[in-house]
Amino acid sequence: MTGYADPRRIEAMIEGLDRFTATPGRGTTRLTYSAEYRAAADFVAGWMRDAGLTVRQDAVGTIIGRIEGRNPDLAPILVGSHLDSVPNGGRFDGPAGVVAGIETAFLFRDLGLVPDRPVEVVAMIEEEGTRFGGGLFGSRLLTGAIGPEALEDLRDGQGVSAAEAMRAYGLDPARAGEAARAPGSVHAFLELHIEQGPVLEAEGRDIAIVETIVGLAQLRVTVRGQAAHAGTTPMDQRRDALVGAVGILAQLPDLARQVGRGAVLTVGRMEVLPGGANVIPDLVTFTIDLRAPAEADVLRLIEMVEGTVAHAQGNGLSCTIERQLYAPPTPLSDQIQTALLAQAEGLGLSHRVMVSGAGHDAMILAGLAPTGLIFVPSRGGVSHAPEEWTDYAQLARGTDLIFATIRQMSGAVPG
Amino acid sequence: MTGYADPRRIEAMIEGLDRFTATPGRGTTRLTYSAEYRAAADFVAGWMRDAGLTVRQDAVGTIIGRIEGRNPDLAPILVGSHLDSVPNGGRFDGPAGVVAGIETAFLFRDLGLVPDRPVEVVAMIEEEGTRFGGGLFGSRLLTGAIGPEALEDLRDGQGVSAAEAMRAYGLDPARAGEAARAPGSVHAFLELHIEQGPVLEAEGRDIAIVETIVGLAQLRVTVRGQAAHAGTTPMDQRRDALVGAVGILAQLPDLARQVGRGAVLTVGRMEVLPGGANVIPDLVTFTIDLRAPAEADVLRLIEMVEGTVAHAQGNGLSCTIERQLYAPPTPLSDQIQTALLAQAEGLGLSHRVMVSGAGHDAMILAGLAPTGLIFVPSRGGVSHAPEEWTDYAQLARGTDLIFATIRQMSGAVPG
Repeated sequence: MTGYADPRRIEAMIEGLDRFTATPGRGTTRLTYSAEYRAAADFVAGWMRDAGLTVRQDAVGTIIGRIEGRNPDLAPILVGSHLDSVPNGGRFDGPAGVVAGIETAFLFRDLGLVPDRPVEVVAMIEEEGTRFGGGLFGSRLLTGAIGPEALEDLRDGQGVSAAEAMRAYGLDPARAGEAARAPGSVHAFLELHIEQGPVLEAEGRDIAIVETIVGLAQLRVTVRGQAAHAGTTPMDQRRDALVGAVGILAQLPDLARQVGRGAVLTVGRMEVLPGGANVIPDLVTFTIDLRAPAEADVLRLIEMVEGTVAHAQGNGLSCTIERQLYAPPTPLSDQIQTALLAQAEGLGLSHRVMVSGAGHDAMILAGLAPTGLIFVPSRGGVSHAPEEWTDYAQLARGTDLIFATIRQMSGAVPG
Repeated sequence: MTGYADPRRIEAMIEGLDRFTATPGRGTTRLTYSAEYRAAADFVAGWMRDAGLTVRQDAVGTIIGRIEGRNPDLAPILVGSHLDSVPNGGRFDGPAGVVAGIETAFLFRDLGLVPDRPVEVVAMIEEEGTRFGGGLFGSRLLTGAIGPEALEDLRDGQGVSAAEAMRAYGLDPARAGEAARAPGSVHAFLELHIEQGPVLEAEGRDIAIVETIVGLAQLRVTVRGQAAHAGTTPMDQRRDALVGAVGILAQLPDLARQVGRGAVLTVGRMEVLPGGANVIPDLVTFTIDLRAPAEADVLRLIEMVEGTVAHAQGNGLSCTIERQLYAPPTPLSDQIQTALLAQAEGLGLSHRVMVSGAGHDAMILAGLAPTGLIFVPSRGGVSHAPEEWTDYAQLARGTDLIFATIRQMSGAVPG
């Protein structure tokens, strides 16, 4: 089989985007509204224009490239993913889906196809939650799941609010609500993403069609004690916030194992203050990311974690826990799964159905419009690390599936 | 009893210095070679000149103000402490001893005293180790205990070496060795410090004369694993560096309790990387500060910690531990203790003898010259925190003892 998509053009876009990192030589670090993000967004807009798209930036910084339809009033099909990254992450997580959308536009142009229904390629902000702490932030703004008021509350590690960062980026946070799409205004959303796990590679398959995205919660724990001198405070008179935090942390992995059935729990970010080697810490904060395929398991795990934190109170320590994000498991559109399956068969791609262990923008968009999500293989299952890799030929095969499905769903015919 | 020292002048110096903090309203944060440090050093130099001292900055940034002796070739008496702080610390830890030295010079001037032997007031750098990780750095440079080569090795949290920071401060690191005092070139060192513990306040005493400083070690532990996606990596296939670190951390306080006899252990600084909420950590580093009055206990505790870290190897994690600083317990000069005691009696100050649980510059200087260290009361025993406090009347009483002892030791007579 020879496909439609051009692996070399895809490679040029992915590798070009990867130049915009705050940590050259140590992976992709591209925080929302950073200088690197601005450069990446401009680069994407340039490729979109080359592909013949009409490009605009919406009120929160999403870059949108539109293929006009013969019937411009029809609700558009959206296709894309996000441009932000985790710290020292890989080049494919997010950009692969944006590039698949742009390559789809190139194929429409190269094949002289005009859709009946408009198609919009979207490059979204802040999916990872790396800068402002709340994951899937860009897609939640896009769907109106959260409003502009959240921009004042969420702050980055330097204490800069999302609203302040937005202003510095040249956007008006008061107008953020304009980015929200009204119910019924989007016909469908399609996303290509890398698997970020080892299954497709191990089975030698080209594509996974996702049926459900696991439920997930992000929690934040704060332990407060009393700072004091490390040398003059006896062990039994300390209110050491780190000792309290470690007492909680030591119990967490076992809670996920007790729940089982695919439940996972991760503490990825932790801060110990004031941070002097000879000062007893008075403030420790850490995040908890927990996931499970069944909603009952997610809720049970949250309760177990909250109970553990509540139980750690005392000895002069105060322990609090906040829910920063909760998303139940998300079943995706049966109709779009069927369409993807048919097109995969037609293209001769080997495929399987999968539950996604990772949250994706598709999870939020599914609340707005019928949504489809496909995976392409990740080498060694590695992701969120500089070694993250997908062969460009496989990314091209995934793009073919996105292209063929959109061609069919948009009623495209030669112009 | 009416003393010599002027509490209002002392207050003006302490409060003036406290303006030079990187965290206004949240305590004193004055890192060595920072802009705040430069301003504090200039402020101290100004007060020294007002007190009639001849002021110079040595090759590593110590500010030295000299009262010339009738016999300028005699080895000088040094008096002072450090100007750097822990993050969000207090205003007295370090500056109290510098200000006691400057006030002593004011008293020499006001009373028209001329010493036979020169007296040098010293304001030293980097005692806390907050910026470059190795405590007592300034006094170790001053005594020649470490040489200029260490300046390249020690780096701050941003990866800036001490040598680079020194250059940015206007000093030449290649000349750092010139700051070292030769054996025999210093007659004695006297330091006033706040107690940083609750004993003097509880007992209602003015002064502690320190007989011994506890032995201490600073260690640094590194745990390496594999970064991976928090959602797609099953619990039993993880190499989570934080889970490994917590396994070590959970055991540490009990090791100090097992050793007992005043042994204490503190983890004050910890970093978890890459630091994304949805990324399994691949690198955790933390410091361990441990202390005990008896050297055998310090050594035993180091061995227990090293054994715990070695035992945590495995499960795909690598765990290493480095010794960053080791200082055995330091007995101070009997002769100076006797002199301090006699002067305290003469001044009518209530006093006691004490073991210091905190390391101080005096601990390093004791290797170069007979050294004396006195404490003044700390309110509530609090230190290394913004609430750190010593009444100015009590700081003045401690300064009287420093002044009277130096007057006697320097052979001062009316000029």
